[in-house]
Amino acid sequence: MRRLFIHAWIISMEEEDPCFRGALGINGKTIDYVGSVPPEKVMDAYDEVIDLKYKQAILPGFVNTHGHAAMSLLRGYADDLPLQEWLEEKMWPIEGRFTEYQVRAGTQLSVLEMLKSGTTCFLDMYDRMDVVGEVVLDAGMRASLCRGAIGFGTEELRKRKLEEAVKFALDWKGAGDGRISTMLAPHSPYTCDPQYLKRFIEKAIEHRIPLHTHMSETSREVAQNVEEYGKRPVEHLQKLGFFDPPSLVAHAVHVNDEEIEILAEYDVKISHYPGSNLKLGSGIAPIGRMMEKGIRPSLGTDSAASNNNLDMLEEVRLAALIHKGVHEDPEVVSATTALKMGTLYGAEALFLEDQIGSLEVGKRADFITMNLTGAHMYPMHHLISQIVYAASIKDVSDVFIDGKQVVKKGECLTLDEEKICHEATRAFEALKP
Amino acid sequence: MRRLFIHAWIISMEEEDPCFRGALGINGKTIDYVGSVPPEKVMDAYDEVIDLKYKQAILPGFVNTHGHAAMSLLRGYADDLPLQEWLEEKMWPIEGRFTEYQVRAGTQLSVLEMLKSGTTCFLDMYDRMDVVGEVVLDAGMRASLCRGAIGFGTEELRKRKLEEAVKFALDWKGAGDGRISTMLAPHSPYTCDPQYLKRFIEKAIEHRIPLHTHMSETSREVAQNVEEYGKRPVEHLQKLGFFDPPSLVAHAVHVNDEEIEILAEYDVKISHYPGSNLKLGSGIAPIGRMMEKGIRPSLGTDSAASNNNLDMLEEVRLAALIHKGVHEDPEVVSATTALKMGTLYGAEALFLEDQIGSLEVGKRADFITMNLTGAHMYPMHHLISQIVYAASIKDVSDVFIDGKQVVKKGECLTLDEEKICHEATRAFEALKP
Repeated sequence: MRRLFIHAWIISMEEEDPCFRGALGINGKTIDYVGSVPPEKVMDAYDEVIDLKYKQAILPGFVNTHGHAAMSLLRGYADDLPLQEWLEEKMWPIEGRFTEYQVRAGTQLSVLEMLKSGTTCFLDMYDRMDVVGEVVLDAGMRASLCRGAIGFGTEELRKRKLEEAVKFALDWKGAGDGRISTMLAPHSPYTCDPQYLKRFIEKAIEHRIPLHTHMSETSREVAQNVEEYGKRPVEHLQKLGFFDPPSLVAHAVHVNDEEIEILAEYDVKISHYPGSNLKLGSGIAPIGRMMEKGIRPSLGTDSAASNNNLDMLEEVRLAALIHKGVHEDPEVVSATTALKMGTLYGAEALFLEDQIGSLEVGKRADFITMNLTGAHMYPMHHLISQIVYAASIKDVSDVFIDGKQVVKKGECLTLDEEKICHEATRAFEALKP
Repeated sequence: MRRLFIHAWIISMEEEDPCFRGALGINGKTIDYVGSVPPEKVMDAYDEVIDLKYKQAILPGFVNTHGHAAMSLLRGYADDLPLQEWLEEKMWPIEGRFTEYQVRAGTQLSVLEMLKSGTTCFLDMYDRMDVVGEVVLDAGMRASLCRGAIGFGTEELRKRKLEEAVKFALDWKGAGDGRISTMLAPHSPYTCDPQYLKRFIEKAIEHRIPLHTHMSETSREVAQNVEEYGKRPVEHLQKLGFFDPPSLVAHAVHVNDEEIEILAEYDVKISHYPGSNLKLGSGIAPIGRMMEKGIRPSLGTDSAASNNNLDMLEEVRLAALIHKGVHEDPEVVSATTALKMGTLYGAEALFLEDQIGSLEVGKRADFITMNLTGAHMYPMHHLISQIVYAASIKDVSDVFIDGKQVVKKGECLTLDEEKICHEATRAFEALKP
């Protein structure tokens, strides 16, 4: 099936000229045309030609580079608390009661919310990952999945988690004709001792699978790392060899200039969560300084238990706003850079930049359309500025993944919204003693 | 006409118990019932009973306490520039070419956007205010209006602006059966010399009209004030007597502890713009310290030329997020406080708290309904948290002002959306030389 969208505002996210009036063509799962509206004989080769009449923009789907989808069941369950208290006293006890039922219900709810708000690919770190993989395949979504492993408990438990993580990563890599990729994810340096981290690193190198972990979210966590290991987390991980294979770190809020140098030197990918970091009072990551050193940070929502939604456009806007305010410099993180963080840099963070993240011939057809007809979108001076600073998820219309339409005029075609919302409430209720 | 909404989630914004399941009744322009679902004989007295089936929340409309509606024509016209450059090199030259046509087109666009996103009352500071007043009356909106006066130019021009400001404030006060209130608004201490400010203060006292001005938006502006007058702006205004009549200041980003003490002592109202202050790189107002001193800051969008939308729910969320991040304290500005800033404290800032800002018997029927049925709103643990941290303007359904429905299922009933959007583009195009 070949489809051509004409008279569209195209935001390609390619390095040069990311924004023009033109057309996008797809052939099956792949983009086969990006450019000005083609002559009729080219159009004739397509099975379907859709005229957007310049009322919609086409842009790459958002790439959410970190979250815990099942935790959407805990959206708003505990707000306005410090991270450690929130995590240890509120989240972990109730998550300990999660069964496959809750993981499925929470993940479906998250996938539904993400699809409807224009996210086409997400990273998920949780457990019972076979369930997550099934939900992703059914929904027609793209994801990078990893079994998160907290290194507490008996040696037997630790061993089982490691084996489970490796087995999952190998079994599911490439599933859904490549829609699923995998990583290995020890939870963090504060929940995994050096020996346990090393075992993950060895497996990552042996099986050529990228590594992912939480790092330096709070100043307390950094101080604790210094106390226990005599080093700040970045140097600690570097010395253990964590950055030798391809790796992605979540947060990187409290990193100093020397640490940024190390992260840049090892080409460590960064996943930045402006919303969650603000809400938990964790602080504000030094994104401006990272970019000066050549790092291209990606964006994520983290879970809806700390965010409290999975709206990537909101993260793009926050990334464009907060660093300007903190540095009192309106030229930090331009609108175009922020949108790249939410798309192209996200693809890079998941090591999928050959497949997704921009609208280029040969890449997978993961893209969204946004309506430009709301009062808040007039007049049109600068399209990317309009999307980043003025639009909202209200404007997300259609979503395509691997060439297949999964959302049409805001309605999800692959999931039963009413049933999933109902199940989410039931699954939470079932946790009550 | 008496209408009763039953089986609703009510967010009254009253000091105690701001959130419960129940009903809201209106009689003409006024709220006549707020409480649990009443017995049938009470219901029978209403002409219409609307069953929301607990699928919607009812809350007070948002109150936007500062903006320049006509400037929506310049949305995205100049982004990512420092305030003075943005203002002096970009905004003022093009605004100088605005005629009545642009003011009407821009104001209509803004009023449309505000109504559709749940704002029921806004403050507008601009010129050609008769045009703004007409648009407000036609749209069925509520507003506090003031002719902003920049004190540059000849004595004749300055005198004319002052007279125009006073005449407008007196002529329009109470128009639309009280939907319009007025203020006197010298632009700022850096554009109005002390003598000119004093003339406004005298008129405010003489006619019992509140004062409004921009103050301490950037550190540069504060330094300039110290250089010219030997005082920081708060002390400067206080010594001039600006805080003697009821007064509202816009921004207050760069105010130190002594200045906060003065503002609290004189009960000066504060209008805070997290989005615009971040985007222009102006800084982050010390809202936490203000609240410790008993100040109840309100929220505004400022104009869409610096924001770039008029979405008050976004400002509520930003207010709840950024101060937590900056202070690394998740307990600063709770969700409930942020929502009060966008509603009740807004009414206080415009000296309209007797009429609007909360759902209380006897107040004017200015309220909105929000859908609770989107995937991002499940499960429901805490309603206010859900609205503040997870909802979006996509969820705004119906809007009532003075008991009259102005938005129904997201569609504006009082304004022609397609025509207004088209006119906005035309009006901007007409400015080109």
